[in-house]
Amino acid sequence: MLTKKQEFDKPKSNCGVFGIFGTPHASALTYYGLFALQHRGQEACGITSCQNISGSKILFHSVKGSGLVSEIFHDDEIFKSKLIGDSAIGHNRYSTTGSDHFENIQPFNVRYRQGNLAVSHNGNLTNAKLLREELVNQGSIFRSSSDTEVILHLISRSKEKEPVHQIKDALDQIKGAFSLVILTDDKLIAARDGYGIRPLVLGELENSFVISSETCAFDLVGAKYVRDIKPGEILVIDDNAIGTRELQSLWLNNISDFPKKCIFEFIYFSRPDSIVFGENVDKVRRKLGKNLAIESPVTGDDNKVSVISVPDSSNTIAIGYQSQLRKQGIDSKLEIGLIRNHYVGRTFIQPGQDKRELSTRIKFNTVKGVLQNQEVVVVDDSIVRGTTSKMLVKLLREAAPEKIHLRISSPPILYPCHYGMDFPSREELIANEFSGNVESIKQEINVESLHYLSFEGMLNAVAEQSKDYYCTACFNGDYPIPIDENFKKNEHEV
Amino acid sequence: MLTKKQEFDKPKSNCGVFGIFGTPHASALTYYGLFALQHRGQEACGITSCQNISGSKILFHSVKGSGLVSEIFHDDEIFKSKLIGDSAIGHNRYSTTGSDHFENIQPFNVRYRQGNLAVSHNGNLTNAKLLREELVNQGSIFRSSSDTEVILHLISRSKEKEPVHQIKDALDQIKGAFSLVILTDDKLIAARDGYGIRPLVLGELENSFVISSETCAFDLVGAKYVRDIKPGEILVIDDNAIGTRELQSLWLNNISDFPKKCIFEFIYFSRPDSIVFGENVDKVRRKLGKNLAIESPVTGDDNKVSVISVPDSSNTIAIGYQSQLRKQGIDSKLEIGLIRNHYVGRTFIQPGQDKRELSTRIKFNTVKGVLQNQEVVVVDDSIVRGTTSKMLVKLLREAAPEKIHLRISSPPILYPCHYGMDFPSREELIANEFSGNVESIKQEINVESLHYLSFEGMLNAVAEQSKDYYCTACFNGDYPIPIDENFKKNEHEV
Amino acid sequence: MLTKKQEFDKPKSNCGVFGIFGTPHASALTYYGLFALQHRGQEACGITSCQNISGSKILFHSVKGSGLVSEIFHDDEIFKSKLIGDSAIGHNRYSTTGSDHFENIQPFNVRYRQGNLAVSHNGNLTNAKLLREELVNQGSIFRSSSDTEVILHLISRSKEKEPVHQIKDALDQIKGAFSLVILTDDKLIAARDGYGIRPLVLGELENSFVISSETCAFDLVGAKYVRDIKPGEILVIDDNAIGTRELQSLWLNNISDFPKKCIFEFIYFSRPDSIVFGENVDKVRRKLGKNLAIESPVTGDDNKVSVISVPDSSNTIAIGYQSQLRKQGIDSKLEIGLIRNHYVGRTFIQPGQDKRELSTRIKFNTVKGVLQNQEVVVVDDSIVRGTTSKMLVKLLREAAPEKIHLRISSPPILYPCHYGMDFPSREELIANEFSGNVESIKQEINVESLHYLSFEGMLNAVAEQSKDYYCTACFNGDYPIPIDENFKKNEHEV
Amino acid sequence: MLTKKQEFDKPKSNCGVFGIFGTPHASALTYYGLFALQHRGQEACGITSCQNISGSKILFHSVKGSGLVSEIFHDDEIFKSKLIGDSAIGHNRYSTTGSDHFENIQPFNVRYRQGNLAVSHNGNLTNAKLLREELVNQGSIFRSSSDTEVILHLISRSKEKEPVHQIKDALDQIKGAFSLVILTDDKLIAARDGYGIRPLVLGELENSFVISSETCAFDLVGAKYVRDIKPGEILVIDDNAIGTRELQSLWLNNISDFPKKCIFEFIYFSRPDSIVFGENVDKVRRKLGKNLAIESPVTGDDNKVSVISVPDSSNTIAIGYQSQLRKQGIDSKLEIGLIRNHYVGRTFIQPGQDKRELSTRIKFNTVKGVLQNQEVVVVDDSIVRGTTSKMLVKLLREAAPEKIHLRISSPPILYPCHYGMDFPSREELIANEFSGNVESIKQEINVESLHYLSFEGMLNAVAEQSKDYYCTACFNGDYPIPIDENFKKNEHEV
Repeated sequence: MLTKKQEFDKPKSNCGVFGIFGTPHASALTYYGLFALQHRGQEACGITSCQNISGSKILFHSVKGSGLVSEIFHDDEIFKSKLIGDSAIGHNRYSTTGSDHFENIQPFNVRYRQGNLAVSHNGNLTNAKLLREELVNQGSIFRSSSDTEVILHLISRSKEKEPVHQIKDALDQIKGAFSLVILTDDKLIAARDGYGIRPLVLGELENSFVISSETCAFDLVGAKYVRDIKPGEILVIDDNAIGTRELQSLWLNNISDFPKKCIFEFIYFSRPDSIVFGENVDKVRRKLGKNLAIESPVTGDDNKVSVISVPDSSNTIAIGYQSQLRKQGIDSKLEIGLIRNHYVGRTFIQPGQDKRELSTRIKFNTVKGVLQNQEVVVVDDSIVRGTTSKMLVKLLREAAPEKIHLRISSPPILYPCHYGMDFPSREELIANEFSGNVESIKQEINVESLHYLSFEGMLNAVAEQSKDYYCTACFNGDYPIPIDENFKKNEHEV
Repeated sequence: MLTKKQEFDKPKSNCGVFGIFGTPHASALTYYGLFALQHRGQEACGITSCQNISGSKILFHSVKGSGLVSEIFHDDEIFKSKLIGDSAIGHNRYSTTGSDHFENIQPFNVRYRQGNLAVSHNGNLTNAKLLREELVNQGSIFRSSSDTEVILHLISRSKEKEPVHQIKDALDQIKGAFSLVILTDDKLIAARDGYGIRPLVLGELENSFVISSETCAFDLVGAKYVRDIKPGEILVIDDNAIGTRELQSLWLNNISDFPKKCIFEFIYFSRPDSIVFGENVDKVRRKLGKNLAIESPVTGDDNKVSVISVPDSSNTIAIGYQSQLRKQGIDSKLEIGLIRNHYVGRTFIQPGQDKRELSTRIKFNTVKGVLQNQEVVVVDDSIVRGTTSKMLVKLLREAAPEKIHLRISSPPILYPCHYGMDFPSREELIANEFSGNVESIKQEINVESLHYLSFEGMLNAVAEQSKDYYCTACFNGDYPIPIDENFKKNEHEV
Repeated sequence: MLTKKQEFDKPKSNCGVFGIFGTPHASALTYYGLFALQHRGQEACGITSCQNISGSKILFHSVKGSGLVSEIFHDDEIFKSKLIGDSAIGHNRYSTTGSDHFENIQPFNVRYRQGNLAVSHNGNLTNAKLLREELVNQGSIFRSSSDTEVILHLISRSKEKEPVHQIKDALDQIKGAFSLVILTDDKLIAARDGYGIRPLVLGELENSFVISSETCAFDLVGAKYVRDIKPGEILVIDDNAIGTRELQSLWLNNISDFPKKCIFEFIYFSRPDSIVFGENVDKVRRKLGKNLAIESPVTGDDNKVSVISVPDSSNTIAIGYQSQLRKQGIDSKLEIGLIRNHYVGRTFIQPGQDKRELSTRIKFNTVKGVLQNQEVVVVDDSIVRGTTSKMLVKLLREAAPEKIHLRISSPPILYPCHYGMDFPSREELIANEFSGNVESIKQEINVESLHYLSFEGMLNAVAEQSKDYYCTACFNGDYPIPIDENFKKNEHEV
Repeated sequence: MLTKKQEFDKPKSNCGVFGIFGTPHASALTYYGLFALQHRGQEACGITSCQNISGSKILFHSVKGSGLVSEIFHDDEIFKSKLIGDSAIGHNRYSTTGSDHFENIQPFNVRYRQGNLAVSHNGNLTNAKLLREELVNQGSIFRSSSDTEVILHLISRSKEKEPVHQIKDALDQIKGAFSLVILTDDKLIAARDGYGIRPLVLGELENSFVISSETCAFDLVGAKYVRDIKPGEILVIDDNAIGTRELQSLWLNNISDFPKKCIFEFIYFSRPDSIVFGENVDKVRRKLGKNLAIESPVTGDDNKVSVISVPDSSNTIAIGYQSQLRKQGIDSKLEIGLIRNHYVGRTFIQPGQDKRELSTRIKFNTVKGVLQNQEVVVVDDSIVRGTTSKMLVKLLREAAPEKIHLRISSPPILYPCHYGMDFPSREELIANEFSGNVESIKQEINVESLHYLSFEGMLNAVAEQSKDYYCTACFNGDYPIPIDENFKKNEHEV
């Protein structure tokens, strides 16, 4: 069984969250929001709504399951008779092992002394194991293997009186990356870790407020982007906020002087039509492509250089690359050299074939006329294991190009991510395998030339243009948040 | 949507539990066990197995879902590749509101400081609300609305060191009816409340030990009935027990001088081929029928008295009734006057018809030749709401009997059960509605005569023949365990 | 995978047909009709309705599938928005090999020169291969492997002008057993072969007319039984008939002087609450039981003879047997010694066990107290392969009866049926294997005594009491309709 | 419910066919072939394989259903134990009304006097009604409403002796567009109508021969493109052909002097990576874009012209358009201004929203930074109803472009297609509604400028560059094959 991302040898996406407060169609809008964020997690999804029947009678409703948003929410009735209420949160999950792991599908919903609580989480906690151990020793019981359950226990065990302060108390204890939407009996709360590693944005839709991982969800539901949730901010949305249009925020105790925004969101994760960390993703990608061309242009014979992207994530990068070539007066064509088949579903089977090679062919086919006898520049965003790159090159060779030049719009990935991206283990990273030796990787992948964008070239493409503002640990091992020893050892355990 | 029992206007069954320790086919045998106990709960089911990979690495596997055992476990692969392990427990649940209430399906599986814990519960706790409130105030969070989750929290929060003592500590705090199977990393534990309200039996199958709600599950898996778990007993099954064949028991602090076994298990719940509370159910039923005939024989004209049962639960009772008539020299025939259609599935629809009347017709048809011009004695086990009885009588009238005599093998049900049977509210009980006035009920149901077995007649049919040994609260309101005020008020909340 | 009948080693049932004309709820009523006839075929079912939009615009709608009636028709919408129309026919099929054999599920719907045509068929044609060959040689194409498609081709190729005469023309050419309901653009037609082998009954429901295999379907929909369709009759129901209440009939060319009604319908197939061939099935069964007791009473010690049935098909027979014993002054008890588990669905799996033995245990459990130290008389309707009987005896032995006496309410089955019953091949029939030697069969099945009802005893139980009126070929090889050589050779090909 | 194409207001695709002969993995390869041809039909699909058990025993196996290839063929077992055999054909269908119209899903499989026959058809017959009427009058019966069934009847009724000649005989009688793959007991036959309207290609894969609608299927299975099936050719592939590598062909009686290849295959239908009618589709598309730029360049201010495509079908056209602008010295950027969401499944629901507008938003989002203050040139392949264009323009306006220029790479669509494309009725075609008045259409769609590629511009992009070689009826009403009056009247009946 292939999943939309796995076969690409990309980091699997890192979950999407959505929340809305103050509208009768809360769950339906959450459904559209999750649909727009589907690229952040295709394995499971869920929606929890809050129905206020009377001041003292509040019901939380929940529908969750393994599958795409369009598969789990396939019936209008779900929204009319089940997911009732004026507020709701949702979650797209990138991975869940089997339908029996239902317990790991978010939002997590519990009852505690203050009423109901539902949580959707994007990120990864680095001290989850330690906290879990402490909680367990104090008598807490865990039904899931997820970090997120730790947060719920901490909220519930807080000595604070008010849900909002309990939440603050809990979040002050956790370390790592977290962008959260939390639903209580009368509030929607959005929170982001003190480094602001994962994105989280605030929007307005008529009278209601909306929270999302990316702004592309706002576009679909018709909401207006207001601003990012700030690193360390705990934003509280309640009836009062709806009435006054003034939002209250609490702040975490430890907020980093510099944020550490995940630079990989720009390179691969986020949708190009989203605003992430205040920047248009597609603009950054075009700039990554331009910097790549400045660093490593391909100057072939007249009319022989064809720039192609690995669709769809590298399309904008390839445009940037080729437009820069032109600006530098280098003759070249932008071409569509690979066609991607979008009909591969979550459960695509591969009867009777060499699965490995086929999984690339199933997704891509070459446009032969475009490639034949050309110096083909293949622009891709990143290389993880290298397996897909090798297979793609093999596929492209069949179309008889003169040469294949591979241009990667990020530096070599040498370190795993501990903040929410599900990279393979360090051993499996091709750049690590060849100790970052680009020449060796070039030979392994079998291309005439290979260039990774330099670290500086990458930073130059983003707004702050300084590594102080971004987490770049996967490239340079510079982890802003210390990792539990315990965590490292077990990093690949689900 | 009809469910197997609802449409019958019987108390819905009260869950079935099963557990096995010490055999490589633990989960498959649990599957057969649950299948044999299907009558105790048709709405949802689940199995949890324990796989001991190495001393320190133990995995719990779980498959659960809404539906019959044959629907949830429809694939051999489940047993080969998922529910691996040498011990397992299972649960049949009588009711779960919608598939989104997955959280309420048992066994409940959690991790706590001592490792894994899985619990299957038959019964109802009377101080669950109070305990839940206390736990919640101490910071516990609840994912389900089930009593059973309370037990898990109590175990986890116990100050005791050993799982077995933690379990004892927890069970000493709960009140009400409980027959439990609990799986830990290295033990299977069976426990029964101090009154022994719900049944629980111990069996042996080759080297392994087996626990079940009823012995009919032993028959299917080929196990031998050893004895009942005793009221207040906490029976511990582990590798040592398998080796030595000696079982260790702990005992609850408060064990009643007299047990209070649910007498309704004999009247309706249990399968006639089971041994329950040490007695053959079918024998008790035959005796109930005999006593009913002694109290209220129907002496019609020659060859005109036909005794029929409402299949299948009253079949044995009818045999007892008619054999007693014969013994008394009263001429009568035993006939099959109602045919039951067993093809009604869980989701049977009723397009375009008067649903109420149809739901009886769908299940039963009359054998006309047998009823015409007869004095028909209809033997049934109990009357709850009375709606089904009314519809059945209407149906029978169409077959033109001369008279219809209704004989009920239990006294009028006047009080709700707080120990695990899901009766409707007091107001809906027909006997309560007519203040126990049998003449009025007779007129409402529209029969020529009606007799409920007397309280004494009922007690006379069971082994101990004294109300000291049985819970008969639904008949006389004599509740052995006090009920929280809080509990009573909310008794119909799910 | 077990199917409801297979595991019992009974002849698989032989399809059920239903039709209704002249009511707005035609398809919903057909659904109930098929539900009542479910015992005649559990593998697949379908309904076709006829919607008369205007005089010239007539639409046939159809829903079919593999599964029980309650599984295929699981949604009210099917009746509201799909199966529209004032007339409908339906079909229950006993066997279809795999879901890809959709083409074999009835009703068959086609368009031909006179408009639409839908057919449901119970029976088996003995000259189907020959006719099929001829039709194919004339250029007909076949989409299914079913006999029934032959009938459609013959109708379509008839030289007659009117659909009704085309149908008569077609039916005059086919040989074998057929009870048919046929829907045309403006008529419902019921037809029965000249021997009247399979049953077919006419009923009235308010203004509409109803056709069914058995009257139990009339009881559920509230229709009144009018009469049987006669052997060789082609009954035409149309708007005129609805208005005048006068039904027109055509007659087949060859009608047998004596009907040859399938006597096995009484013994096993039909529901006991049905009227079949003008007789109450349950009455015949009681008489079969009585005759069996007259021929072979069991006279054990006082209070030691327990008569039990193999539920549910033999329940009435056992009652007849035991009441006759009593009449003869032989002391005995009627007991329920076997409990049948009705939760076995169509797709029940049997993980990790000896499948053969288990398939009996899954369906039946013994009531031990009733059997221990008893002389148990097991009353069953028939023995086909003998495998189930052997397993049942083995199961019963575990309950420690003193002796087991097997009483069968039909003679030994020695020959296959070519008229619609799906017996196994001759070689697999246990009576044939032992050349009808009852002593050998007794030893094989391992019972203390075995008696098959005599041929005369069987005939004595039915109305006409002469073999001239019944097909008894499976017992004596006396086939009323000659079988194609070709057919015999291929008799086990699906 | 949206379907992949409907919501786009494009002609629905016109089916895909695939066949293979002479390899043990025939059905698995057909599965991959259909997957590559999925864009030609997403509503239903099927595969039939031919298993030669012995010379005289040949079995056809078939699996079909409503849904995508990945949905219907979701289990390896299908290929291992069901679709066995060394030859197979498959079909992707663009539309089938409801799952109960199973009868219309291809391949069609029948038995006739020569054995088995399976057919997959791309195209539309113009004399089907007439032929159907004749066949019906001769006694043929029809189970589907599809044209294709007519072909089967004609083959079966042919006076010829050999299947191949029977097929020729049948095909000589039908008129219209047809590209067929036919499987007999020992042959795979590919045939194309005398005008060659729909594409059909021949390939080789090791020892086997392969037939497909487009070459993209060859790329996935690893086959080599050999040549097109010629207009009027009936190509016969059998064991002899496999051995000798020589293929025999028969020829239809009426072959047009000039082929009439569907020019719309280049404009929209076929995949850009396919070779269709001997030409690379992507090359034609780039040329269409170039000609469009020559005819109607957009010359805005410096750096203000942004060329975007409506993804994915117009991507190559947009590249052609922009590269021509540059060649003409017109400053412009190629941008990705619309992001398409590929997660819309077949059953995507739209709770609680204005469905019409939403169906565009669900599929597309704008990349705001790229469009703001720009003169945006939107390149699209065609306009059918105009509804999607209007919605897209509305969506684009929200991104605040200065102007929107719409460029269409085909002439106005004024006439319906009778040869296999499922256009809406003439009345619904926007170009027809405004009598081809481009200015009025421009206003309706609300763009600053609108240009349709001229008829000459279109022809200039394809190889033959003459309208003699192409069917262009949808643009100029010049139908090469006369249409039955009857057919026209009922053109919108399914």
